[in-house]
Amino acid sequence: MVVLEARDRVGGRTWNRPITGGSYIDAGAEFVGPTQDRIKALAQAVGVETFPTYNSGSNVYWKDGKRETYAASGPTGIAPPDPAYLPDIAQIVQKLNTMATEIDVEAPWKAKEAVEWDSQTFYTWLKANEVNPDFMRLASTATDAIFGQEPRDLSLLYAVFYIAASGNETNQGTFERNFQTAEGAQQDRFVGGSQLISIRVAGELGTSVALKAPVQRIVQNAKGVKVVAKGGRVSAKQVIVAVPPALAARIEYEPLLPALRDQFTQRAPMGSYAKVDAVYERPFWREEGLTGQTVSVNGPVRVTFDSTPNEGSPGVLLGFIGGTDARGWYGLSAEQRRQAVLDNLANYFGAQARNPLEYVENRWADERFSRGDPVAGLPPGVLLDFGTALRAPVGRIHWAGTETSDFWVGYMDGAVRSGERAAQEVLAELP
Amino acid sequence: MVVLEARDRVGGRTWNRPITGGSYIDAGAEFVGPTQDRIKALAQAVGVETFPTYNSGSNVYWKDGKRETYAASGPTGIAPPDPAYLPDIAQIVQKLNTMATEIDVEAPWKAKEAVEWDSQTFYTWLKANEVNPDFMRLASTATDAIFGQEPRDLSLLYAVFYIAASGNETNQGTFERNFQTAEGAQQDRFVGGSQLISIRVAGELGTSVALKAPVQRIVQNAKGVKVVAKGGRVSAKQVIVAVPPALAARIEYEPLLPALRDQFTQRAPMGSYAKVDAVYERPFWREEGLTGQTVSVNGPVRVTFDSTPNEGSPGVLLGFIGGTDARGWYGLSAEQRRQAVLDNLANYFGAQARNPLEYVENRWADERFSRGDPVAGLPPGVLLDFGTALRAPVGRIHWAGTETSDFWVGYMDGAVRSGERAAQEVLAELP
Repeated sequence: MVVLEARDRVGGRTWNRPITGGSYIDAGAEFVGPTQDRIKALAQAVGVETFPTYNSGSNVYWKDGKRETYAASGPTGIAPPDPAYLPDIAQIVQKLNTMATEIDVEAPWKAKEAVEWDSQTFYTWLKANEVNPDFMRLASTATDAIFGQEPRDLSLLYAVFYIAASGNETNQGTFERNFQTAEGAQQDRFVGGSQLISIRVAGELGTSVALKAPVQRIVQNAKGVKVVAKGGRVSAKQVIVAVPPALAARIEYEPLLPALRDQFTQRAPMGSYAKVDAVYERPFWREEGLTGQTVSVNGPVRVTFDSTPNEGSPGVLLGFIGGTDARGWYGLSAEQRRQAVLDNLANYFGAQARNPLEYVENRWADERFSRGDPVAGLPPGVLLDFGTALRAPVGRIHWAGTETSDFWVGYMDGAVRSGERAAQEVLAELP
Repeated sequence: MVVLEARDRVGGRTWNRPITGGSYIDAGAEFVGPTQDRIKALAQAVGVETFPTYNSGSNVYWKDGKRETYAASGPTGIAPPDPAYLPDIAQIVQKLNTMATEIDVEAPWKAKEAVEWDSQTFYTWLKANEVNPDFMRLASTATDAIFGQEPRDLSLLYAVFYIAASGNETNQGTFERNFQTAEGAQQDRFVGGSQLISIRVAGELGTSVALKAPVQRIVQNAKGVKVVAKGGRVSAKQVIVAVPPALAARIEYEPLLPALRDQFTQRAPMGSYAKVDAVYERPFWREEGLTGQTVSVNGPVRVTFDSTPNEGSPGVLLGFIGGTDARGWYGLSAEQRRQAVLDNLANYFGAQARNPLEYVENRWADERFSRGDPVAGLPPGVLLDFGTALRAPVGRIHWAGTETSDFWVGYMDGAVRSGERAAQEVLAELP
């Protein structure tokens, strides 16, 4: 068994990125929560512990220059206390959760209403179901933060599938479990950083892991498969491709992949996203009774978290930029990008936020081996006509990566689940 | 000036494919019509003439086992004589044509209603505007044949833009000009086949054209650009990339392309399409007063044309397969594919159609250097957030190909227009 890793490090969309003072931030995937059983099992197997995301006190809600705070464990739950939006939050989330119960996560294209749901955008459905026509702005905050896509970019079926996937074999997926901190996907973090899991696994694999070896070509025939990477080639019986569909499209295959599979990879765009970190001497917002969490309807940073290391210092505020905000922000100068982010953080946490010790941008859309994050987002029509090509093996080639998972698509848990499924496929083929 | 051509022939999505008896068929782009000025000018410059597409007599309309014929120049024009659909055809086409007048083809994302139109699928708009809920089946026949996509796969804004683009600087684009034979984009064909134009141009360029030289890498810096192809490299001041966005994504760039451009290429999927040709001793349908043209709501072949060469023999029936039909048909065995096509042709033209001298499939989705046809089709949200990246040069790299045209996107005329525009960009940069 050989692992060909394109980067000069393992971990993919997780990365313990060093910051000032010897600490690090989670530049990519960071959080873990209930029902994410497989990433937790893997972490446990390699001795990586979790600790709770800081969640004491009040969250910030920001809208058009007006700042409010609300208890993180308050009566409205995850919902910001905006009377203009509360009725829609309640009824829209309830409807989506009900729709999600109709989805078989292994074949969402078979849902009873799959044709209707995959023929419209999430935007269209929200417009038809919202009471306040302004609610789209808050919905956009949610899809920006979860997918790096706007409601119009996503198929309704895909959005509902994603909710259904936010659970496990015994717990129905819900929107709340996806979006929440307490009891949700942001509940915990990994001590030592998410990447530590991959680093430990790679340590066990030893010299079987080749770094800086991006795969360029995969040639298969009746006898086996030859994988041509920069710097070398490997012969094998079976191969698992564990990159997002849009990047799998950039590998050359011989013979060519079936048209349906190739065309699927033309239709699974990566999210437009960025994760920014502002590093301070200490998490000063905690002293003011704030969790560090924000929901805002004004970008570019619309959602924040306290990303301070387990040791409690330095203080780290993490901001998410997604969708249209990210697409505009990508094109700004470095100084403009920084200014836009710090303006947002100062709105949410006061003038102190304006002067971080360090400001870090994690722009995965500018990385050759990601070209977007956190996950591929499917537009209308793709699940319906191309869903069967999502993970169906092509001869000796098997497909992994969080995009191909049944549960927790877009999360570390989905990545691990997909890897376990692909490994099962391969084991079944080996003598 | 050097042309690096990936294939072993010039012409791209045009190809004079040889058939039995020394003749050939247009395996790809075939037709030309009014306002397609630039392809006509180029053809004229290299001495390639046109001749009218056979259009005398009656067309066939097929629906659920029922066959009707109607005069190609009859009172309903291009519309099949189905009382269930006629009212919708009239009012839907009129509405679309009116909407198209609001589009600036150089920047459709600036249209007054761009946000609304790019936030919904064409399906959603049709559902909201059709009188007969069954009309979607005929609409699907149209988008299958024009785009190789279903109405749900396409942004409404993109569909309206495509109609607006079916014209030129002085003639507003209309749906009819896109879909019609007489007075439309299928009015004429090229004597000697469409590819002859590229063959003649390549002849003038002589040894500047390198075949079998797919470009793998483009490296640019302050001094120039280096283009690495299979079998050699070229240094230049400027480079024009004239492949569809989804294939431009598969070239390696140094430095990396801006995130917005790369993510655009993840969001411009090629159509799911096939062009099938059945070759007979003579065009027997002409003797029965038929044009050879069909509109059907049952696939896989939903639209046909008489594709007999100018000399009048052999008789060639051309069928288009698109969208969901194509995606299903791709996965059939060779025998099943042939059977499905001949079943359709026998329905439309009688038992004689069942026994062609030769049966030819043009499956561009299975060609490494196309992976779909006839054109990229944009899902919702792409024009709005990524439209500016469609053809904006990136340093020394310029983008051509029919997808980047202002008028006649998806047609040979758009390809020529885009090439002329890119050439102007390059000339403006050269000393």
